Amino acid sequence: MHLTAARRLDDGVDERTFILDGIPGVLWTSGSAPAPLILLGHPGGLSRMYPRLVARARRCVAQGYAAATLELPGCGERPRSAVADEARADLRRAVQAGEPVADEIVDRLVLPLVEQAVPECRAALDALLALPGIEGPVGYAGGVISVGVRLAVVEPRLAAALLFAGSYVPRRIVEEARQVTVPLLVLLQWDDEGNDRRMALDLFDALGSTEKTLHANTGGHTGVPEFEGDDADRFFARHLT
Amino acid sequence: MHLTAARRLDDGVDERTFILDGIPGVLWTSGSAPAPLILLGHPGGLSRMYPRLVARARRCVAQGYAAATLELPGCGERPRSAVADEARADLRRAVQAGEPVADEIVDRLVLPLVEQAVPECRAALDALLALPGIEGPVGYAGGVISVGVRLAVVEPRLAAALLFAGSYVPRRIVEEARQVTVPLLVLLQWDDEGNDRRMALDLFDALGSTEKTLHANTGGHTGVPEFEGDDADRFFARHLT
Repeated sequence: MHLTAARRLDDGVDERTFILDGIPGVLWTSGSAPAPLILLGHPGGLSRMYPRLVARARRCVAQGYAAATLELPGCGERPRSAVADEARADLRRAVQAGEPVADEIVDRLVLPLVEQAVPECRAALDALLALPGIEGPVGYAGGVISVGVRLAVVEPRLAAALLFAGSYVPRRIVEEARQVTVPLLVLLQWDDEGNDRRMALDLFDALGSTEKTLHANTGGHTGVPEFEGDDADRFFARHLT
Repeated sequence: MHLTAARRLDDGVDERTFILDGIPGVLWTSGSAPAPLILLGHPGGLSRMYPRLVARARRCVAQGYAAATLELPGCGERPRSAVADEARADLRRAVQAGEPVADEIVDRLVLPLVEQAVPECRAALDALLALPGIEGPVGYAGGVISVGVRLAVVEPRLAAALLFAGSYVPRRIVEEARQVTVPLLVLLQWDDEGNDRRMALDLFDALGSTEKTLHANTGGHTGVPEFEGDDADRFFARHLT
């Protein structure tokens, strides 16, 4: 892990950007005692997502956690994936034509992303948890929900996950979801234009955890109400501290 | 309104039982400043429901509200309804036979209950809000969800409602739900054996409020997790105080 820059934000949060095996990432910490780590998921494009990510990271640090995020494969400054770009175009065409999105399009778009992103997340956990002031347990918060589900299945250091149901989910991931056992809070924007509500509810139903909660709110993809931030704080406080 | 008994509970909550137009009810208050009122809904049978109701009432009073509840038509010591008893038996037969519950059975069971209970709730609000130490705004918390929906449509003093999706809902009530505008928190027990999940989700979708939130949790009808009590406190704090 190679640190590329470090600065202290106005509220005293230490922000460090890093490169790990060629993947850009950001780590946010406070100077204080060893903290559990929350990995922040996002749809890709670190600089585009930065304002939302740093706001969530500030919240995490204020609650006594460290927060970190990685660039997704094929996004931001990382080499693009022709397969993903083509699948994304096919999906957009289907949605704009008002047609149902074929499973094979969702598989082409999401499965390679999961296959690549999850090992990268786990390698990042190895590196981040080796840093002073960062310790387990680990939480995951955000999308891509298929990445969060696979990570919850394969990563024993993950103690709780807040999953944002904001993207298409391959059938295979819905099947894998039955193996998830960690406590879950699933956020669903009821009127999310880019989301398949039926698919999101099927995924929630499939998740194997005995503690799983769905919070559905009116509004579109980016319309998550402010009070859900407080609910997320309490969810992680119950399971990470 | 005729007070039938008054006592102070161990935690200093004043509990008064009353009869209003022949309907038994219970009022819980603290000695302190004028408080908003939360009307507690339940499936009927005050004495059977008392332990759960008094626990919720203690919570309400601790949060600075007054709480009250009324016996439902046809339940507890009130005259039974042959129509409702027959419809309940038909519903039970259908469920035990694994058959879909016909809309006309749900209508026969629930619509007369709504027609009678909602005016009774409104008359109780008239009487309760006339008492010293009780004031608006008013919240509704619990089931029967069809009663809560109709009350939210017709009662202007209602400022927020926490609705428990734990019973069958007539199509007519789903249609009426589009007229609801107050902030809503809808609780759904995902594995509720006595509830139709699809119907509950259709009702949530139909509700017209711009602020509506669904909290779905694993478990059966009575398995609402403890942390939902905290969420309910925060919901009413946002809208009643």
